Amino acid sequence: MAPPSGDKTPSKVNQESTPNRSISSVLFVIAMQTEALPLVDKFQLAEQSDSLFPEGVPWMRYSGKYKDLNINILCPGKDKKFGVDSVGTVSASLLTYASVQALQPDLIINAGTAGGFKEKGASIGDVYLVSDVAFHDRRIPVPVLDLYGVGSRQAFPTPNLLKELKLKVGKLSTGDSLDMTPQDAALILANNATVKDMEGAAVAYAADLLKLIFKPVLFVGSAVQVSAHKQL
Amino acid sequence: MAPPSGDKTPSKVNQESTPNRSISSVLFVIAMQTEALPLVDKFQLAEQSDSLFPEGVPWMRYSGKYKDLNINILCPGKDKKFGVDSVGTVSASLLTYASVQALQPDLIINAGTAGGFKEKGASIGDVYLVSDVAFHDRRIPVPVLDLYGVGSRQAFPTPNLLKELKLKVGKLSTGDSLDMTPQDAALILANNATVKDMEGAAVAYAADLLKLIFKPVLFVGSAVQVSAHKQL
Repeated sequence: MAPPSGDKTPSKVNQESTPNRSISSVLFVIAMQTEALPLVDKFQLAEQSDSLFPEGVPWMRYSGKYKDLNINILCPGKDKKFGVDSVGTVSASLLTYASVQALQPDLIINAGTAGGFKEKGASIGDVYLVSDVAFHDRRIPVPVLDLYGVGSRQAFPTPNLLKELKLKVGKLSTGDSLDMTPQDAALILANNATVKDMEGAAVAYAADLLKLIFKPVLFVGSAVQVSAHKQL
Repeated sequence: MAPPSGDKTPSKVNQESTPNRSISSVLFVIAMQTEALPLVDKFQLAEQSDSLFPEGVPWMRYSGKYKDLNINILCPGKDKKFGVDSVGTVSASLLTYASVQALQPDLIINAGTAGGFKEKGASIGDVYLVSDVAFHDRRIPVPVLDLYGVGSRQAFPTPNLLKELKLKVGKLSTGDSLDMTPQDAALILANNATVKDMEGAAVAYAADLLKLIFKPVLFVGSAVQVSAHKQL
């Protein structure tokens, strides 16, 4: 399924900040280490224990080269107190900000698993090139602040990649909860989202703040009817 | 109202990271510029347009001295696209991280307005020294990840300040929405919160990551019955 809005021209910000710049350094932000490791193996990257980041942060970096491309995979790592992956928007945005500052990549790819919505055509096992991101759990019912809360952003368009790999295209909605309240479902529907995750729109916010282009690429790990949740 | 948990000894992290260190530099993180300006005037701080931060970020800094104390007030500033204050957890955590890195303060104070809960004794006009922070909109119903989502943290205890100023003490719950769903209300009650804001627990997360002590101080701008929202 490829919604008509899937592959438009880049947004104004992206056009201004990336005048046909070639891509030589790619930074992947991946929330869970188990999601990252297959890619680390595939590209034969090495874990770096360098001092790019402040002492004591749990962030992990794997780096190496694939052909002419410098690749860095960043994970937020295990929370110091709870020992679980530091998922969610706050840690993902901090990691994105700090690693862009340290590594100055040309492109950020937010990769990982997502929930997919059946009525939008998503099935388990699909891989989506995300066209747009937005939040579904930042409700600020005040004029203009409501739009800021939703924080809709266009991801970098990749028509060649789409043609080459024949992946699906859809919009992503991000929230800090794994479950979905009726209010979340209503906003996910308003965002016209096909996939849902816990980091994408926050990675996009931090990337946009630093004028970097970003592209979420998400694997659908579960699929539900979002409209059913709205009526709970 | 001062709950018994209000002024305990510092958490282990705080004890380790602040062995009787004296405070000579204080960083205020304040989400809205209109909340910050009275304090900027009071301390006669000057707006700084320096290059502490990456080009193009909307973050604002006011700095100066009060007696022997270096004071910096940081605001996330106006969103580039929407022109409204960049409220919420993602921008507050990024601002906290970047300004701690740049300014190396001894203490972070997150100040601003909050919603207060009547059944916990909060009234409009109260000022709370926050004893603990947690999130109420990061529901991850998986063992241990659920606790990570709530992200409960103790703020720095300030018994002398409490005695001197006779302020109230209470727990803070943070979420990215201005409104409150039944699920939010249930978690706010579970967090035993007296006040609710949109940044505190995220500022605390970023501060904790960098081993800095933090203290939210919040003015109650509205007061509601949280238990009524739970039953909506």
